[in-house]
Order: sequence, then C-alpha cells, then structure tokens
Amino acid sequence: MQNHSNSEGKFRVYLDHNATTPHSSRLKSRWMELMDISGNPSSIHQDSRVSKTILRETRKKIADFLGCSPLEIIFNSGASEGNNSVLKSVYSLLRETRNEFLISHVEHPSVLKTAEALRSWGAVVHLIPVDRNGSLDLDFLKSKLSSKTALVSVMYANNETGSVFPIQEVTQLAHAAGALMHSDCVQMLGKSSVDFKLLDVDYATFSAHKFYSLKGTGFVYVKKSSPWQPLIHGGGQERSRRGGTENVTGIAALNIVLDELKSYEAKISEVQRMRDQMEAELLQRIPNISVTAVQGQRLANTSSLVITGVDGETLLMSLDLKGFSVSTGAACSSGNPEPSPVLLAMGLSRQEAQNSLRISLGWENNEGEVKSFINCLVETVEKLRAIEAEEGKKDYAG
Amino acid sequence: MQNHSNSEGKFRVYLDHNATTPHSSRLKSRWMELMDISGNPSSIHQDSRVSKTILRETRKKIADFLGCSPLEIIFNSGASEGNNSVLKSVYSLLRETRNEFLISHVEHPSVLKTAEALRSWGAVVHLIPVDRNGSLDLDFLKSKLSSKTALVSVMYANNETGSVFPIQEVTQLAHAAGALMHSDCVQMLGKSSVDFKLLDVDYATFSAHKFYSLKGTGFVYVKKSSPWQPLIHGGGQERSRRGGTENVTGIAALNIVLDELKSYEAKISEVQRMRDQMEAELLQRIPNISVTAVQGQRLANTSSLVITGVDGETLLMSLDLKGFSVSTGAACSSGNPEPSPVLLAMGLSRQEAQNSLRISLGWENNEGEVKSFINCLVETVEKLRAIEAEEGKKDYAG
Repeated sequence: MQNHSNSEGKFRVYLDHNATTPHSSRLKSRWMELMDISGNPSSIHQDSRVSKTILRETRKKIADFLGCSPLEIIFNSGASEGNNSVLKSVYSLLRETRNEFLISHVEHPSVLKTAEALRSWGAVVHLIPVDRNGSLDLDFLKSKLSSKTALVSVMYANNETGSVFPIQEVTQLAHAAGALMHSDCVQMLGKSSVDFKLLDVDYATFSAHKFYSLKGTGFVYVKKSSPWQPLIHGGGQERSRRGGTENVTGIAALNIVLDELKSYEAKISEVQRMRDQMEAELLQRIPNISVTAVQGQRLANTSSLVITGVDGETLLMSLDLKGFSVSTGAACSSGNPEPSPVLLAMGLSRQEAQNSLRISLGWENNEGEVKSFINCLVETVEKLRAIEAEEGKKDYAG
Repeated sequence: MQNHSNSEGKFRVYLDHNATTPHSSRLKSRWMELMDISGNPSSIHQDSRVSKTILRETRKKIADFLGCSPLEIIFNSGASEGNNSVLKSVYSLLRETRNEFLISHVEHPSVLKTAEALRSWGAVVHLIPVDRNGSLDLDFLKSKLSSKTALVSVMYANNETGSVFPIQEVTQLAHAAGALMHSDCVQMLGKSSVDFKLLDVDYATFSAHKFYSLKGTGFVYVKKSSPWQPLIHGGGQERSRRGGTENVTGIAALNIVLDELKSYEAKISEVQRMRDQMEAELLQRIPNISVTAVQGQRLANTSSLVITGVDGETLLMSLDLKGFSVSTGAACSSGNPEPSPVLLAMGLSRQEAQNSLRISLGWENNEGEVKSFINCLVETVEKLRAIEAEEGKKDYAG
C-alpha cells in the first residue's frame, strides 16, 4: 500500500487513513532492524534484553507524549481489546454499587457491542444522542448521570465523520457524578494536537495501526488507581494487568514511529490545509453535495460527504478502479450492506447514508494526489448521475 | 537473537525455545516482503486485497495441517488470549447446566489464572494431579467427571518438562461424560509430529512465536458448533468471533513459516537425536544429576534437569555470561523468586525445584553448539559445586 503507485507499479492513491494507515516511510527505512528482535521480554538471559529495552523505551515515549507515568500504560493487541478491557473491568468491579453506562451513540463497534454484552449481563446502558452536526447531547448526558453511573465512554473523535467531542467537558460532568471516564482515542494520534492530559480521562485506548505502524499492537492508558481487571489472565506481563507475551515486533515498530511526533504539528496542519482546499473545490464543482458535521470541531484529515443521487458503494468501486482508496463507512463494518449506523445515529436518512463517501487523508498524501482525486471524483459523479438520469431517474447535475 | 553469534558478534547459543523461538531463517530471508503489507483486510478497496488474501491463505494452511476446516480457525493475539477465550466462553455459556472445570495442575498461568477467575465467579475447579514422571492422574479425572463437568483442559505438552499428555484418552473420557475438551497446544507445532485430528479436542490454542514466527499472533481451533462467545467484542472480523483488526504482519509471517512444515519431521528427529545425546552425556559426566519426567512420553526438544547442590538461577546466570540462553522455569513466571509451580505440582521438593534447569533445543541448533553447551555446563557445575564445598557445604562432586 503506497501512494501514487503500488508494489505492482499501478497508480494508487490511499485516502482511507481512518481505516488504517500505511507503514510510515521512517518505519520502512528501518524495517530490517525489526528482523532480529525476537527475545521474550520475560526471560532473564541476555537474549531478552533487547526486547525488554524496547518495551521500556516505547512505554516511556508514550508516557512522555501523553504526559503520564509509564506505569499508566498497558500494551495490548489494539483498541478493540482495550475498549473491551475497560468496559468489562468497570462492569465487573463496580456492578454492585454502580451499574449504569453512558455511551455515545456513535462509538466504535468494540464499545457498542461490548456495551450490549454488559446489558445482557445486567448493566443499564444509555446511548447519548449525537446530532447531524456531530454535537453530543450534553443535556441528555446530564439528565442520566447519577450515583448509579459507573462509566461514561465517549470517543475522542468519530472515525466516520471526524467530529471531535468535548471530552474535557464530558469528563468534568462524569467526575462530578462520581463516575469514571473512558475515551476511545484511536483517531487522536497523528490527526490531532490536543493536550491529552487536559482531557483528564481515567481510561483511553489506542491502536498503533491508525498511526502508521503495525496492526495487532495497541495500548491503554489507565490512570493510577483506576479499577482494572485483566481481560486476559495469565503470566505476570504488564504487571499482571494483561497476560500474554507482548507483541515485541509491533512495539519496536511503534517505538520508531513515535519519533515522528517531532514533526507532528506541521504534518497535521499540512493535511488540514489540503482537506479544506479539497472540500472547498468539491463544493464548488459538484452540485448537490454536502459535508457532514462540518459545523463542529473536526479532525484535520477527515471529510464525510453526502453526494445526492449517487450510491456510495458504486462510487467507491468506480474510484477504486481508477486507483483511489476511499470508504463509505468504518472498515470493520464493511461487507455489511446496511448504511452506516454512525450516520443514521446522527440523524441522516437511509438515503443520505447510502449516498455518503469518506475521504481520510494522511501524512504522506500530497497536493498532486488530492488534485487528481478531486478531478476523478467530479468526473465519476457526473458520469454516475448521467447514468441515473438516462435510466429515467432524477437529474441532480444542476 | 541468533545462534553462535548475536547481532553484536558475540558468541551466543540459544537453548530456550520453549520460552520463545527466534525468527526462522526462511522468515528472515523474506523479511522485506512484510514491509508493504498494511491494508485493512476489512476494507473493500484494492489496498485491502493483499491482506485479505494472506488471511485466507494462512487460515487454509493451518486448517490443512490440523486436518480441519478453515472456518474452525480464529486468529487472535496468542495462546494466552486463546486460553482465556475458551475457558470464559464455556463458563459464560454453560454455567447454568454445567459449571465444573477439570484442569491439569501443571497448566500455563493463562489457564490456571483464568480458572481462578472462574472460581471467583462461581465455577467449581478441580486440579488434576500430575506425578513426577509427568503422568496425569487419570483416576482422579474419572472420579471427578460428571454431568456437571463443563470443560476438561489439559495441555498437549508441558512447557517446563516436555511431558506429553494422553490427550486422546482424556478427550474420550471427557466426551463420555458429555464435557467439552480443550488442549493448550502451544508446545505442539514444531516440536511434535502428532496427528492433531486424532486428539479429537473441541478447542485447541496456539501461538506463532513458539513456532519461529512473530509474537502477538496466535489462533484457536474451535470445532464446528462448539460453544463460543467473543472475548473481544467488536467489528465483524473472524466472522464476529473475535473483534479487532487482525495482526496482518504476524499472520503474513506465519504464512511464510508454515511452509517449513514440509521439512518438519526431519527437523524434529534431528533435534531429538541431539537432545538424547546431550542427556546421555550429561548423565555420564555430571554426578548427582537427573532428568525430570524422563519415563513418560516427552517433546523431542526439552530437557528438564535437577542438578543437586547447584542453584538453578545462579547456574542460569553463569551460563548466560558464557553465551548460553537457558531457563529455570517458564519465562512468564520469571522475576518471581519462587521455585517453579509446575515442578512443585509434580511433587519435586522446593530444593529440587530450585536446583532445576531447562534446556529446550530448536531447529537451528547444531551439534557443535550442543557440544559447547555440554562442556560449559559440566565445567560450570563443577565450579559452582566447588564454591559450595569451599564454603563448608555439602560436596556433591562425586
């Protein structure tokens, strides 16, 4: 997966960075360094030393970036595991006194499906509504928060629309009610320059593959003395908070990628400039197109479009054939013919959701690629609308 | 981690393959192929195609090797997750009718600690005794099996002693009582040429890093229609049986290593020949030494020694300084000053357990390395015993 051309030399432009990111150039330039790192960090002989050092260094880099203690970082297999661990820990440990959960309606399936499981085990789960501007219904949250609330879980930013939620404010409300606060921060790293410490959450979950590194690696931030129970019981790894030999290759890769945090801010603003330009041009050149949740605060890289009269899936496939990778919703829901549950939860109609397209830019996209994409999208939309019109359906072209 | 010399050019011989294995030569020769594999297998554009194909191919190779259907394989982060998934699934889904678990006393912590958790949630857990020959107490098993038994969990082979358990027989007993059967098969791949299908278990768990591949990747065999509940709820990955984007890099590496199964049998018998020769020579040259569980069936590569009068940890560190990586017990229990719970459960005294050393050979060890190791061990034991003798303690040297 590369930009401009793939390994077979074909023209490819990758614009689906919210689904996953390609390995960063820096990581690829140091790829061979990962090859011989295979010691078990829990062993006590010299062959384990390199692995042990990598774990310590990477944990330290993460802690420095987040502004927390290395002891507050637990490595795991990714944010899905992290989200399950947080919700199930809190349920298991607090259910006698607090068994209500407040979850935003547009969370990732690893939060929503886990909440469904908790509900089937006896928890009370309230879904906090989100409107089509991406705004969280704080009045609903306030009305449901009580001495029974165990946990509030609201993602840092939505993967489909890029909407950024007011975590700091939500955390204050949760804490005022004596509840714990979790945020799925999977879309934060690399796409936002927020000061994590200000969010003041008790738990936050991250995945390395959303940050130009390998799949199968992630970490949870667990604020000191927050309730925690291993989802995976086992050996003494991660101070007995997560059993299983650590994914040393994945952590070593993350260690390399984390060094790019130095150039972080510049990359984010460059991506935002390209995204904003792209949206302005698309709004000008394509009639009957809108950007979802554009009014609120958004991630720098995400554009969620509704293009009236054009089926998103057909559009995606046409663009794919021309070399552009985009998506219609979350990758983890693909194969599902239903329109995006996130967009429906935000109040878009089924038709609007079916006419949606998500573009998510990345650090290694350039202006030329974005220009080619705009031209291709304009052309493809015109063609698809012409076909619809020919078939006697509505004419959206003007 | 390499044999004979490490990346710094220092003499190193790795003899701790039950803790983890170095990446195979074949995998290293194809290391660069992994670099550009970064598509999300759940996406529907072309960038996901390579990842999707790798998942399908690897699943098929595993299924062919085990003699099962690809649909019976679920990828995960490793055997600790697998063991947790199996035990917790069975407990959650069967507890109303069957809530007893029969677990061997020498299981990996990811089984024993999970069983402890189940016990705290209301399950009844019986630990099946194992004697110092590594024999499982089948009479105890028979006496406890009943219509209340949900699951019997016995590992294929013990990681510390190499004892191979009579899984086929245990499965028959479990099934006769209407119970399900699980086997932690983490030490099977690469170390045994058993016909997996004959074991007839309902669940089996595996880790890629015990098989010359990457950490953070594993899989579970779940026999068709066996009870299953995701440990990680989330997206539709793995047919909704395990949420989370798959560790594509790890699965691609496993795909490469699985091709070495062709040369499997030859490698195992070569390792066994070296191990047997090593034990014969050590028994001849070192007085007051014994091999644990030598009477029963054992893995081809493992030697668990008790060397009277020599502290295992001191011995390990002396050998480490001379370039040999061995262990005293399971890596995941290291850092724990207590003697190996496995050896204690087998009836060895605390003193014997403290005098133990585990050597586990691998595919890339050669005769020269084993000879150097024998000489070094003989010399080191002599020296350590001489120090003990000088300090006025017992003389074990003759």
